[in-house]
Amino acid sequence: MSADTRELVVAGSGVAGLSAAVYAARADLDPLVLEGDEPGGQLTLTTDVENFLGFPEGVGGMELIQRGTEQAERFGAEFQHGSIEAADVDGQPLELSLSTGGTIRTRALIVATGASARWVGADGEEELMGYGLSTCATCDGAFHRGDDVLVVGGGDSAMEEALFLAKFADSVTVVHRREELRASEIMADRAREHEDVEFAWNTELLAIDGSQEAGVTGATLVSHPEGYPSERYENGEDVTVEDVDVGGVFYAIGHEPNTEFLRDTPVELDSDGYVRTTESASWATTATAAEGVFAAGDVMDRAYQQAVTAAGMGSMAALDTEEWLESTTAVAAAGADTPQMEADD
Amino acid sequence: MSADTRELVVAGSGVAGLSAAVYAARADLDPLVLEGDEPGGQLTLTTDVENFLGFPEGVGGMELIQRGTEQAERFGAEFQHGSIEAADVDGQPLELSLSTGGTIRTRALIVATGASARWVGADGEEELMGYGLSTCATCDGAFHRGDDVLVVGGGDSAMEEALFLAKFADSVTVVHRREELRASEIMADRAREHEDVEFAWNTELLAIDGSQEAGVTGATLVSHPEGYPSERYENGEDVTVEDVDVGGVFYAIGHEPNTEFLRDTPVELDSDGYVRTTESASWATTATAAEGVFAAGDVMDRAYQQAVTAAGMGSMAALDTEEWLESTTAVAAAGADTPQMEADD
Repeated sequence: MSADTRELVVAGSGVAGLSAAVYAARADLDPLVLEGDEPGGQLTLTTDVENFLGFPEGVGGMELIQRGTEQAERFGAEFQHGSIEAADVDGQPLELSLSTGGTIRTRALIVATGASARWVGADGEEELMGYGLSTCATCDGAFHRGDDVLVVGGGDSAMEEALFLAKFADSVTVVHRREELRASEIMADRAREHEDVEFAWNTELLAIDGSQEAGVTGATLVSHPEGYPSERYENGEDVTVEDVDVGGVFYAIGHEPNTEFLRDTPVELDSDGYVRTTESASWATTATAAEGVFAAGDVMDRAYQQAVTAAGMGSMAALDTEEWLESTTAVAAAGADTPQMEADD
Repeated sequence: MSADTRELVVAGSGVAGLSAAVYAARADLDPLVLEGDEPGGQLTLTTDVENFLGFPEGVGGMELIQRGTEQAERFGAEFQHGSIEAADVDGQPLELSLSTGGTIRTRALIVATGASARWVGADGEEELMGYGLSTCATCDGAFHRGDDVLVVGGGDSAMEEALFLAKFADSVTVVHRREELRASEIMADRAREHEDVEFAWNTELLAIDGSQEAGVTGATLVSHPEGYPSERYENGEDVTVEDVDVGGVFYAIGHEPNTEFLRDTPVELDSDGYVRTTESASWATTATAAEGVFAAGDVMDRAYQQAVTAAGMGSMAALDTEEWLESTTAVAAAGADTPQMEADD
């Protein structure tokens, strides 16, 4: 391995990447953290995190990221702007081409590039994301006891979000652009049968009202008896526009894992682009199908996607990486010391 | 379900149990947390936790537990002394017999009873555990830069601990009661080939010296050319007693998962008594082989065993439980509403 080959690059600076960096730096692997296009990841879109263990009064999403960054830096993790544009992970060392130009060679890579929630494109969403507009009911549902809320989407996760929110909210209205759900029958039935869940069919969210101080106060919906199978609303169409008073809006139109740079590499992705990691004899690991490449957090986890689960998986990835680096070093050292053994291999 | 059947009992009040309780309480499942024989779990034996994301200055093990307890209580989790002596998990509701007497009926159970590290029985270990004596090199190795340290054990985990500690410590001596390692050949070779790792064969740790203020300062070892295959050292034997100056002692003689109450139940345990959880299409879940029983943390995780991984798994268990409760409620409700459909099933 040449001198300019790093031991470990961590791609992504959200919770998973930071936790991996803390563990890796503390194990003297000198990790380089590539911050990615959205430094700090999804959590920076959340104002209050109440369910990350250790913070009885809650902690701001941005604050948790800053604390984690400081922690990783304290143990020697290095941070650098930019993301990976292309990765050659067919052999050692791995070669990463960066968005900022240049190439990094590294023995190991932890992919913690996250998944980005899809946004609707409604007016006001940029301002209100994290202030009553959310992409995670499990995270933020408990803030809406007694509110009327909207869930935008028509798939299984929209049904799950609606059912979860119905525990807290006075009413939940599922806003769906079509008149049929994409959700599985069982999930759709559960939502339909719930007395506090209603549906706004053929309806599109145009705007969200409110402010960062007051939170979400209302929304503008537009509906059309013939549905919106593909195009968005245009002014002047024969439609019904309605303003509703709501205290919260939840987007549930899916996430997209940030794995474009891994397409056409030996790292296996599932049909939606999430990184596949392997199972172990005892439970699960963070190893991918490519030697030296590990993955943690939302980029490989389509089921839980919590801050604390991402932190746990980041730690697992660093421990898996450390063990892998140790084992390949030992093999390389044994090979270098005893060249006469090569004939036996 | 009768009125005295709870939704969820969480067995164990370590990091995994607390994180599960935070999520479950926040999802309005009214969890009852049984504190177990060692309230707060393994982390209460650790003074400083440096690698739990969110605490750049570190956090005391006991402090993290207290903060997590407060957090769970804030959302309505109920805590109760005692542990489970016997569990009937063959059908619904689950029935738990408590060490404090009495029985609890519950729809779901999260097993977060942890694993207890085995202790050697050396003099001074009660006082010094967490003060230079540790059962976790990954957690505490970084505190021993420049120290000479001992690792007690002869299996794979002892070799791992020794190799990890060799990054920080000046020297690592593996103290082993026999003259052959139980470790796998590859791990044993790696440890033997490391220049900073030495072995004290046929040697037993008798006492650890130091104080909670000064930490570990030394240890007393006793060795015998014929080894100690089974019995412990007795005064007056023909042995060599040696005092060594060391700054740290690590026990690596194994952990025992606290799962006695699950023997002879449908919950599957592996050969060492760890709870087996299932894999999912996407990664892993916390579901066990018994309906309504989930597991999180050291009791099911023999690979990572970190505070932050346990917190992540606790959250996963609560989310898995919530989904399961939701699905069985829906089935029960559908059954009650539509008895005429039974013939179609």
